[in-house]
Amino acid sequence: MSALFKLSKHRMDPLIDGVFAVALTILALEIKVPELEHPGSPAELLHALMHHGSVIGAYFVSFALLGLFWIWHHRLSDKVSEIDGALLCCSLAFLSLVCLFPFASAVFGRYAFSGNTAALLVYLPLLGFILMSQTLYFVLAMRRGLIRADVPAAEVLGAHRRNLYALAFFSLACIPAALLLGLAAPIACAVFGALLIWAARAAKLRQASRTAELPAS
Amino acid sequence: MSALFKLSKHRMDPLIDGVFAVALTILALEIKVPELEHPGSPAELLHALMHHGSVIGAYFVSFALLGLFWIWHHRLSDKVSEIDGALLCCSLAFLSLVCLFPFASAVFGRYAFSGNTAALLVYLPLLGFILMSQTLYFVLAMRRGLIRADVPAAEVLGAHRRNLYALAFFSLACIPAALLLGLAAPIACAVFGALLIWAARAAKLRQASRTAELPAS
Amino acid sequence: MSALFKLSKHRMDPLIDGVFAVALTILALEIKVPELEHPGSPAELLHALMHHGSVIGAYFVSFALLGLFWIWHHRLSDKVSEIDGALLCCSLAFLSLVCLFPFASAVFGRYAFSGNTAALLVYLPLLGFILMSQTLYFVLAMRRGLIRADVPAAEVLGAHRRNLYALAFFSLACIPAALLLGLAAPIACAVFGALLIWAARAAKLRQASRTAELPAS
Amino acid sequence: MSALFKLSKHRMDPLIDGVFAVALTILALEIKVPELEHPGSPAELLHALMHHGSVIGAYFVSFALLGLFWIWHHRLSDKVSEIDGALLCCSLAFLSLVCLFPFASAVFGRYAFSGNTAALLVYLPLLGFILMSQTLYFVLAMRRGLIRADVPAAEVLGAHRRNLYALAFFSLACIPAALLLGLAAPIACAVFGALLIWAARAAKLRQASRTAELPAS
Repeated sequence: MSALFKLSKHRMDPLIDGVFAVALTILALEIKVPELEHPGSPAELLHALMHHGSVIGAYFVSFALLGLFWIWHHRLSDKVSEIDGALLCCSLAFLSLVCLFPFASAVFGRYAFSGNTAALLVYLPLLGFILMSQTLYFVLAMRRGLIRADVPAAEVLGAHRRNLYALAFFSLACIPAALLLGLAAPIACAVFGALLIWAARAAKLRQASRTAELPAS
Repeated sequence: MSALFKLSKHRMDPLIDGVFAVALTILALEIKVPELEHPGSPAELLHALMHHGSVIGAYFVSFALLGLFWIWHHRLSDKVSEIDGALLCCSLAFLSLVCLFPFASAVFGRYAFSGNTAALLVYLPLLGFILMSQTLYFVLAMRRGLIRADVPAAEVLGAHRRNLYALAFFSLACIPAALLLGLAAPIACAVFGALLIWAARAAKLRQASRTAELPAS
Repeated sequence: MSALFKLSKHRMDPLIDGVFAVALTILALEIKVPELEHPGSPAELLHALMHHGSVIGAYFVSFALLGLFWIWHHRLSDKVSEIDGALLCCSLAFLSLVCLFPFASAVFGRYAFSGNTAALLVYLPLLGFILMSQTLYFVLAMRRGLIRADVPAAEVLGAHRRNLYALAFFSLACIPAALLLGLAAPIACAVFGALLIWAARAAKLRQASRTAELPAS
Repeated sequence: MSALFKLSKHRMDPLIDGVFAVALTILALEIKVPELEHPGSPAELLHALMHHGSVIGAYFVSFALLGLFWIWHHRLSDKVSEIDGALLCCSLAFLSLVCLFPFASAVFGRYAFSGNTAALLVYLPLLGFILMSQTLYFVLAMRRGLIRADVPAAEVLGAHRRNLYALAFFSLACIPAALLLGLAAPIACAVFGALLIWAARAAKLRQASRTAELPAS
């Protein structure tokens, strides 16, 4: 079964680049052309565009985040030698979340700035799931021995540690927003963040011992 | 005439990846940003998003299916050495069905969960046609001698058999839905499924005899 | 100036494949999800989808035409060694017409089947301009000596001749539709078609003389 | 930190081509299918399409501009050997502006032709920012020593000078439109344009001295 889903790594890249290219462009589709009552009035058009300010701001934030995910994914997948069934599923799950990003960004841009806190409950969990799918992707690649042989172990563990720290930082930063959902949610965030920091420190220790073994790499 | 439509296999791949990337992203466009009466009300936004539950569920199902078709097509086309006119038409027919998938998924997501059985009559036939176009693609490649010389015959017949079994399984699974169309449709599904299983078993026998001829491959 | 716009041929291909992939997928966006009064009524959904029949038919016709243009362009550009400023402009003009195709297809699908003959006056001229831009692309490549050295002259002239015949055939086939615009339009179509056939025959004579020069290629 | 964002140049190209392909196709989405009161009336359809004239004109202008940016970016990035964090950010900023282009083009097409001068205040600044991001991209590549070693210094300075002249020309051409915003805006445009011309002349002097050093390249 696993042989059925083994794909060359280079097969996956065009799909990922394509999905990101479309998702990035679709982000901007949420910025609608304003409908004016008097099409010839510059003041009315400027006024309508000013109201678009928050939507345009959300667009740039979302674009930067998606761009960051794209760079991050490429930096992780550069270290991977081959893609098996589990990594393939994980990549597709990552892409399915990326495709939802324009929707979340549109909800955020339209409602978050008018003080609707529920908009955060779409945006932040989606960000969290994307971060998790990336971390999981790399953990799976490490567990299944699919890391390229020419990448030093210290670099692999370093990338893994940065993934964990990013997820921990995100989890802790979500605590204020999680308060909206009652008391259980922020506690879960805090515990999850603490666990991640603990895992990242464990990875650091392993990295240190590896580097000590190979003093002159 | 046939020389006019002969294309290098690598010419086709960017178009297929591009169409899949766009179709996957467009799936998510059906999840519309809800329009609220009170833009500042978190409860109303959450309520509206809850109603989107079925649409979001249908999105993930459709995404997984499209992802599966993408992997499947690449695994088949990996075994093909060259694309001639017939394979090109078959690939374009496959892509034209893939592009219809977001529409079928939108109809399914909007109506199937409110108990409208007719939504299945869009989704399931489209799935069936996509499966058929894939099976036909590989049959044509086998008949026309366009399989790569370095792929063992047993592997080719194995891929062909899996195509037939997948189509047979799908055809039999459609019988309950086909009951909606009267009695003729489920009988046609059952007969078609039985024929496919018979063809798959014939391919298995041929594969077994090939493997017997080459005992030490 | 011309050096400023010289591009490697392989730089152009991803843009062309990408534009075609998006245009093909956008064709299907015109097939809107029907809005039902009673979301749970299968009969109403089926009835609404039946009304979509002409739109779906127009989708498949437009998909096949776009697919044909994609194959045709790749077969022409395969014979070209390099892209200079003129070919680049011609390729971009071709792409700008391809991007208009979903619009023309949508107008055609919505109005042509309800007997609105004006819909043809959008679809057919666009098709004609696309055919012209392709023919011009190849004529420019021939005139500017940008054809690959290893392509035999007879094959180049053959491709050129087929372009001219396709354009002539299209021009003559448009005569009935052009009658809608008065008497001048069909006469222009007929004269243009005749000129193209004359040019194609001249190319055939040149091709024959080239082939005679090289009897044993 | 900078090593974290170092990417092979060839990793960036598919994303850029993809974003341009989608943005070019989305430009045409603004040309909406007209809704007719009498679907069968050719006169009404033609009349509605005539009203689309300005939108279609804006589409072709925007398409040509985007095509020009695409060629320009490829000509600059061809001279770059590697992409570091600063260039990556600059490229993503460039892409985020390119994705806004369909929106600006839609505002321009709908309002500029009905004499609404405010539409220019969306279109022209966006054009200016795109030109600036391109110029900045090349300045950063020059400052950080990321230009390919086999590109002669005179050619690099020539490309830089053309960037500056294009930006200066654009800045000066915007003066009439900037008058809409009061007196400060056109003065800023004029000063900025003069500075750019001064910088371009300085680059020309450096280029001349380099060429004098290497009389027989």
